[in-house]
Amino acid sequence: MIGIQKYAVIVAGGKGTRMGAAVPKQFLLLQGKPLLCYPIQAFADAIPGIRLILVLPPDQLGSARTVLRSYLGNLDVTIVAGGETRYNSVQNGLKEVADDGIVFVHDGARPLISIELIRRCYVRASEHGSAIPAIPVTESVRLDDLGVSTPVNRELLRIIQTPQTFRTEVILPAFQQDYDPAFTDEATVVEAFGAKVYLVEGMRDNIKVTTPLDMIIADALLKQRK
Amino acid sequence: MIGIQKYAVIVAGGKGTRMGAAVPKQFLLLQGKPLLCYPIQAFADAIPGIRLILVLPPDQLGSARTVLRSYLGNLDVTIVAGGETRYNSVQNGLKEVADDGIVFVHDGARPLISIELIRRCYVRASEHGSAIPAIPVTESVRLDDLGVSTPVNRELLRIIQTPQTFRTEVILPAFQQDYDPAFTDEATVVEAFGAKVYLVEGMRDNIKVTTPLDMIIADALLKQRK
Repeated sequence: MIGIQKYAVIVAGGKGTRMGAAVPKQFLLLQGKPLLCYPIQAFADAIPGIRLILVLPPDQLGSARTVLRSYLGNLDVTIVAGGETRYNSVQNGLKEVADDGIVFVHDGARPLISIELIRRCYVRASEHGSAIPAIPVTESVRLDDLGVSTPVNRELLRIIQTPQTFRTEVILPAFQQDYDPAFTDEATVVEAFGAKVYLVEGMRDNIKVTTPLDMIIADALLKQRK
Repeated sequence: MIGIQKYAVIVAGGKGTRMGAAVPKQFLLLQGKPLLCYPIQAFADAIPGIRLILVLPPDQLGSARTVLRSYLGNLDVTIVAGGETRYNSVQNGLKEVADDGIVFVHDGARPLISIELIRRCYVRASEHGSAIPAIPVTESVRLDDLGVSTPVNRELLRIIQTPQTFRTEVILPAFQQDYDPAFTDEATVVEAFGAKVYLVEGMRDNIKVTTPLDMIIADALLKQRK
């Protein structure tokens, strides 16, 4: 992993309104530490020398600086203001990416990301240009279109996680495109630009914290891991 | 809810091999009580007078009787041997359903089923003939066909839960059909018979316990509920 530059763009842009808390969810405490500290620490531990870029809503930049200093000490994190959409936020983060290398784009709300998965994504993105972690679906799924629902073959479905990982020559030009509402994640952006997307095996405990229920689950999984 | 008969067919037919435990997962202890006791108790609490039918692999019938007596006392539960497939197992359970009424078919591995959701399914199945609990998907989803993956519009996708609930005149004739591998749940069976399937709002904490990770999550959610 020596020689080329690695970047983690950690996007914690949401207002987290589904959490029903006064504090944005990225600052909620999980075992005494703000949620967003977990992925930052995981990338720093997994890839020595990685450049850490944290994208946050503009009004949270100040408090983020204080939080990072308190909890992550002198870890070097570049804090960037997000935009209107996830696409804009990632675009802003990518302005900090200069050299040829590998870029991880990770949800700030996935605190349980493991060193193992980060490295798996790194290796596969180095080979293929992209690596998107995905897990199988264990429950029945239906398509519900205006109240008419039809079964879907779940064997073919994959739940997509992050870090969505790319070589810079794939992701940087892709994010020069005009915004399209079909850009729901980085994989869709890169595909629209004509690149192929490679799936890698994700991890079931790499959950996305969206609701208070997820905080309870994240807490239990974190305790188990220790 | 007076007048017509109600039945809960609780299917715990799996060997639970993904659990990696010596004991079938339906007998694993969750806060000191076997997993399968939770849904049985929930249906008994939600619908007074409901007939409880538990479907298990043939070799587990004896231990089930002992377990139920120890943990659920004199609650009246009919224990039935399951078949090769989920379809066969439900068929066997339905042999115990005689009168006109409402049938709930529930995964034994969903211990967190709530009284609220049971009653919601009851009301909607009474009106429409069927009620299938479903929740939205909060993560990106892709279709992966032989290594070629394409994005799916997750707004239209629904994760299907149980209890899948039906009026007897819908479910009983549907389960007279010859088995088809496309029968992945009760909704698909009923549809193949020509009936329309109605979705109702499920509950995110009504998880299906499949892996050891799910046991940790179920334990945390159960503690929170108390």
